[in-house]
Amino acid sequence: MTNSEKALKMHEEWHGKIETCAKSHVNSREDLAIAYTPGVAEPCKVIARDPEAAYTYTMKSNTVAVVSDGSAVLGLGNIGALAAMPVMEGKAVLFKEFGGVNAVPICLDTQDTEEIIKSVVNIAPAFGGINLEDISAPRCFEIEERLKELLDIPVFHDDQHGTAIVVLAGIINAMKVTGKDKESAKIVVNGAGSAGVAITKLLLTYGFKDVTMCDISGILGKGSQNLNWMQQKMVEVTNLEQKTGTLADALKGADIFVGVSAPNIVTQDMVASMNKDAILFAMANPVPEIMPDIAKAAGAKVVGTGRSDFPNQVNNVVAFPGIFKGALEGRATAITEEMKLATAKAIAGLVPDEELNENNILPEAFDPRVADVVSRAVKELI
Amino acid sequence: MTNSEKALKMHEEWHGKIETCAKSHVNSREDLAIAYTPGVAEPCKVIARDPEAAYTYTMKSNTVAVVSDGSAVLGLGNIGALAAMPVMEGKAVLFKEFGGVNAVPICLDTQDTEEIIKSVVNIAPAFGGINLEDISAPRCFEIEERLKELLDIPVFHDDQHGTAIVVLAGIINAMKVTGKDKESAKIVVNGAGSAGVAITKLLLTYGFKDVTMCDISGILGKGSQNLNWMQQKMVEVTNLEQKTGTLADALKGADIFVGVSAPNIVTQDMVASMNKDAILFAMANPVPEIMPDIAKAAGAKVVGTGRSDFPNQVNNVVAFPGIFKGALEGRATAITEEMKLATAKAIAGLVPDEELNENNILPEAFDPRVADVVSRAVKELI
Repeated sequence: MTNSEKALKMHEEWHGKIETCAKSHVNSREDLAIAYTPGVAEPCKVIARDPEAAYTYTMKSNTVAVVSDGSAVLGLGNIGALAAMPVMEGKAVLFKEFGGVNAVPICLDTQDTEEIIKSVVNIAPAFGGINLEDISAPRCFEIEERLKELLDIPVFHDDQHGTAIVVLAGIINAMKVTGKDKESAKIVVNGAGSAGVAITKLLLTYGFKDVTMCDISGILGKGSQNLNWMQQKMVEVTNLEQKTGTLADALKGADIFVGVSAPNIVTQDMVASMNKDAILFAMANPVPEIMPDIAKAAGAKVVGTGRSDFPNQVNNVVAFPGIFKGALEGRATAITEEMKLATAKAIAGLVPDEELNENNILPEAFDPRVADVVSRAVKELI
Repeated sequence: MTNSEKALKMHEEWHGKIETCAKSHVNSREDLAIAYTPGVAEPCKVIARDPEAAYTYTMKSNTVAVVSDGSAVLGLGNIGALAAMPVMEGKAVLFKEFGGVNAVPICLDTQDTEEIIKSVVNIAPAFGGINLEDISAPRCFEIEERLKELLDIPVFHDDQHGTAIVVLAGIINAMKVTGKDKESAKIVVNGAGSAGVAITKLLLTYGFKDVTMCDISGILGKGSQNLNWMQQKMVEVTNLEQKTGTLADALKGADIFVGVSAPNIVTQDMVASMNKDAILFAMANPVPEIMPDIAKAAGAKVVGTGRSDFPNQVNNVVAFPGIFKGALEGRATAITEEMKLATAKAIAGLVPDEELNENNILPEAFDPRVADVVSRAVKELI
């Protein structure tokens, strides 16, 4: 049986990968009078007087909504809300299994930006946080920014920030392995969608000076055509030398490549044209921009991918469960830039110096320390 | 410790009465590859081709949204979305504990009819049914009717139909005890909000001929002032003799009183003015329209209330968990009038003739047979 066949069979067996479970069992009239009528009126009255009390008396304290419109589902594109459900349920499973956080999949039957914003604002009372997922760019930027303004709970677009945090964590350690530094390293980010933009932003926030973005049309600069509003903002702070040309041109003399783009678009020649001890994060899924062994043969020192069958897997699951665990426990009203940086450093710090090498720059997804370390890093900044 | 104090303490301890639980545990890379990426793509692709497959591969098959805007919360009035959360969580607990149905509380931060409808339509993909709850009349009628038109999953306003079903079940058995019949019995329904309207409608559907509605201003008829659009529809099919006057006037010569109104508004004189072997469902909560012992002393034969400390408790929990269990298992696209009648009869039928008496007209909420019997009655009509 192939993995695809097994996945289909298991999904049928599960009939939903998450379920709701009662913490307050109802086995008697007295139970009913405490958990439901008439006893329930008491916490309702307290919350009506003091909205903060919702965090004491309801699931809001430990529950996030995993919200998608199904417009950009992992590798599948715009398959719509209903078809996105297995992914959102999977995400909810990871929230619970890795972070102990309750998560409810909310797949929205609209791809209208205003309607999405309105619907999320409307359902927000039940939730302590909103995790946006698989929403296409550039709509996702506006949706996230507007929701952050409108809501007083953390709003986090994992495809952007989760990815950016784990990439930064990996780069921090890869620089230790290669002796490169953020002041002088030249970075090329290929792919200018939600992940590419967020990675670039976080790298700049961390202190990298020289970042160039590329997409299918080549190097992005102020003269590029058809940029969306977010890409227009990005060319103001990247590619400061106003280079033009192809991805191959961009990679000449670069130290670090970050790919969130398409399979097999980086050649061995392109890797060979990079600076010595090049670092490549080739994260197209399931087939990366260049296969790790091929990149290594061409001279790359450190290679990370999204795949679990090669070293240095770049996996968001080391970030988002702990981030929301910390944000909810600490009652954060937002996930700040400082928290993202602290999280990346905390993840990088989980690999001790003596275990750090070109094939071991990131902690394992299943390392049981990860969520606690990440959640502590977040909580310290609340 | 009073019950209110205990309820507050327990709600704090629970910190949310429901949680999400993973059915697909993720303990290894292989687990991750099946429940999440890359395996999850397979069920997504199947659903994208065939939306019906969502019922095979996702939680939609067994999950309802418990939706409220907090505008008419049990006995507390318009306390808003956040303060309504403990009630909606309680309802979700009852769905799971009594019917095995997953339920997610959705408290909407809007009381605008159009926005509520839009938000519920937008979140519908994740759910197999919508249970509306504690939404004020007459908005609840429009919200329910419009959602039924717009969605292809069951939409059920429990305050209306759950209450109506249990009242009808009780009346069916109370008529057996008293020898009254639906052709000749005169019924007075006091309270013309969501429950009163739905009860009246279901009694007429069942075959009662003579139903009169009253509210705080007395008997409702075509000449009544300030009727909302639903009440205007109701006076076309009730009070066919066009009586006018007070509740006391309405009760003279009546056989059955159904109260979903206010405490202590029925006097012993009013009960004494009813026909012999009167049946009273006095369901104002927690203090009924007349206390059972007082009504009995005045000549009533059968008295039901919402209270658990008197016989004949009228409790929606005997209806809604089984109704959704059956509707979801049978893939019903709506809860029909026939299903409501069948459910009422099934609930009534759970009290065998030899156990039927004036103090035992309804099954216990905790009777483990209830949800199965009700769900079977629903499924037979799909």
